[in-house]
Amino acid sequence: MKKLINEKTHFLADMLKGLSIANPQLEIKDETIVVKKNKKDKGVAIVSGGGSGHEPAHAGYVAEGMLDAAVCGEVFTSPTPDKILNAIKAVDNGDGVLLVVKNYAGDVMNFEMAQEMAEMEDIKVATVIVKDDIAVTDTEKRRGVAGTVFVHKIAGYLADEGYTLDEIQSRVEHYLPQIKSIGMALTAPMVPTTGQYGFDIDDDEMEIGIGIHGERGISRTKIQTVDQIVDQLIDALQKEVSANKLIVMVNGMGGTPQSELSIAVKYIAQVFEQQNVEVGHWFVGDFMTSLDMQGLSVTLMPYEETLSKALTAPTASPYFN
Amino acid sequence: MKKLINEKTHFLADMLKGLSIANPQLEIKDETIVVKKNKKDKGVAIVSGGGSGHEPAHAGYVAEGMLDAAVCGEVFTSPTPDKILNAIKAVDNGDGVLLVVKNYAGDVMNFEMAQEMAEMEDIKVATVIVKDDIAVTDTEKRRGVAGTVFVHKIAGYLADEGYTLDEIQSRVEHYLPQIKSIGMALTAPMVPTTGQYGFDIDDDEMEIGIGIHGERGISRTKIQTVDQIVDQLIDALQKEVSANKLIVMVNGMGGTPQSELSIAVKYIAQVFEQQNVEVGHWFVGDFMTSLDMQGLSVTLMPYEETLSKALTAPTASPYFN
Repeated sequence: MKKLINEKTHFLADMLKGLSIANPQLEIKDETIVVKKNKKDKGVAIVSGGGSGHEPAHAGYVAEGMLDAAVCGEVFTSPTPDKILNAIKAVDNGDGVLLVVKNYAGDVMNFEMAQEMAEMEDIKVATVIVKDDIAVTDTEKRRGVAGTVFVHKIAGYLADEGYTLDEIQSRVEHYLPQIKSIGMALTAPMVPTTGQYGFDIDDDEMEIGIGIHGERGISRTKIQTVDQIVDQLIDALQKEVSANKLIVMVNGMGGTPQSELSIAVKYIAQVFEQQNVEVGHWFVGDFMTSLDMQGLSVTLMPYEETLSKALTAPTASPYFN
Repeated sequence: MKKLINEKTHFLADMLKGLSIANPQLEIKDETIVVKKNKKDKGVAIVSGGGSGHEPAHAGYVAEGMLDAAVCGEVFTSPTPDKILNAIKAVDNGDGVLLVVKNYAGDVMNFEMAQEMAEMEDIKVATVIVKDDIAVTDTEKRRGVAGTVFVHKIAGYLADEGYTLDEIQSRVEHYLPQIKSIGMALTAPMVPTTGQYGFDIDDDEMEIGIGIHGERGISRTKIQTVDQIVDQLIDALQKEVSANKLIVMVNGMGGTPQSELSIAVKYIAQVFEQQNVEVGHWFVGDFMTSLDMQGLSVTLMPYEETLSKALTAPTASPYFN
């Protein structure tokens, strides 16, 4: 297995330890919870998390202006309710906690259970569930993918602005249905804990609509050129997002070099130019990955002044820019 | 070939176009020169460049606090002297231009020729050559690798501080012999312009001492665990850098997920802890890559207050942090 790891069973613990060494403002609690050493003493705390393997999500976004805590499960495995509860308790200062949850059965169940446990201890908790992956037809079953990172940033901004938990929840829920993503892969992720690829794919194949945990997509073809690929992604996204000004994220899947993300940007911009659609902001980089998978996802949101302000407000996270 | 590209001959042009779209403060001149739209009107201009395929190097570092221009050759191919000359002319404001050159025969020759041509036009130019790759025994033949990014940051800082061209050159030359790097690879880079891998390597093999253009390394073995790998890298580096406080860069080679870089940090930190060596700053991420190669390099520099200030001063580049 071509991985820079020690023992496969140490993947999560080693990764979090390294992250906290390189970012001394972070602290690891209870082995799986990443918090800021400098806990904020007022304002709603934003907590997210889920299985690992999506770095820099979520731990890399624990920073001023974004998350207060990330609860990290093992690779592609939901964190348990007790860990989520401990994260909530670690960051709550009395103003309440917003949970940002990607729409996967395990995550939704465990975060919900943690919310109930926290409420029994009189902590105010609200949950928002991200379902941005349009590759899944049933809108209620849509997975939470790269758009989740926009939600971290929006929620973190609203908390910094001093909004209450209810206000943040309702504002985030205003934006949630507007965030649409779709991904594609050239290769499958190699899962370090199993030593197996997330799926099988031939050397001359690619797949559109894949998830971030090795979930199969909606169409598999011979490898196409990037302009053909982004045409299909944008076309699918624009069936759900129609606006003449957009915010665009081009997200690398972990093994995609930056050069190729830049090339994709060129062809995405070309599509929008032909349509007279303006792009207000581009976010290009590795935001929500699937281990070492090669591929990308595109996320679109209609442009809005408040949204623009939220997404471009400063954050101490080096991974969101 | 598993690449998100259009035509392989368009790789460079498409990439620079995409980069300038996503970073509207940048401008492409003469097809291969990346400059800031907002040219500075005084102070030494810092110019670097070389073959492409090392993104975010060098174009991603064209930003306040780092480079004024990057001249981008085709993949793994030196830019021509006329392009370098045009870059020099595009950014010179009368205070002179420092060229930061990685030690490769083609780069050194072409930048030298450009310097001579610029001097004939009465532009003050100085050159510093980075030779940080200790995998090459002959110190004069050492390649310029990830340490070059530290040089961009140091030079950019000194220019912002208002030092003259001579002063910047001599200060950078003070640091140059202290910057030491060594890399390793699990996989070879797939070169988009040829459709060939940079070298052959088996599924169960790794190599220490590789370069950033597919150059072979110094030892090939079966894949080892990351702790064994970093032990060897640090051991080699410490034959040349002995200090009880260090600045450390852990650089991904393009296809390495951030999780694995974090894991490497843990084990590097463990080595230093055992030695009672302190780390003043960690820089962890993709700084100087080799297309989609999986692997990493480690760069060490002895800690120094001025150096620390230079490396941590703000820059507008999203790729240096």
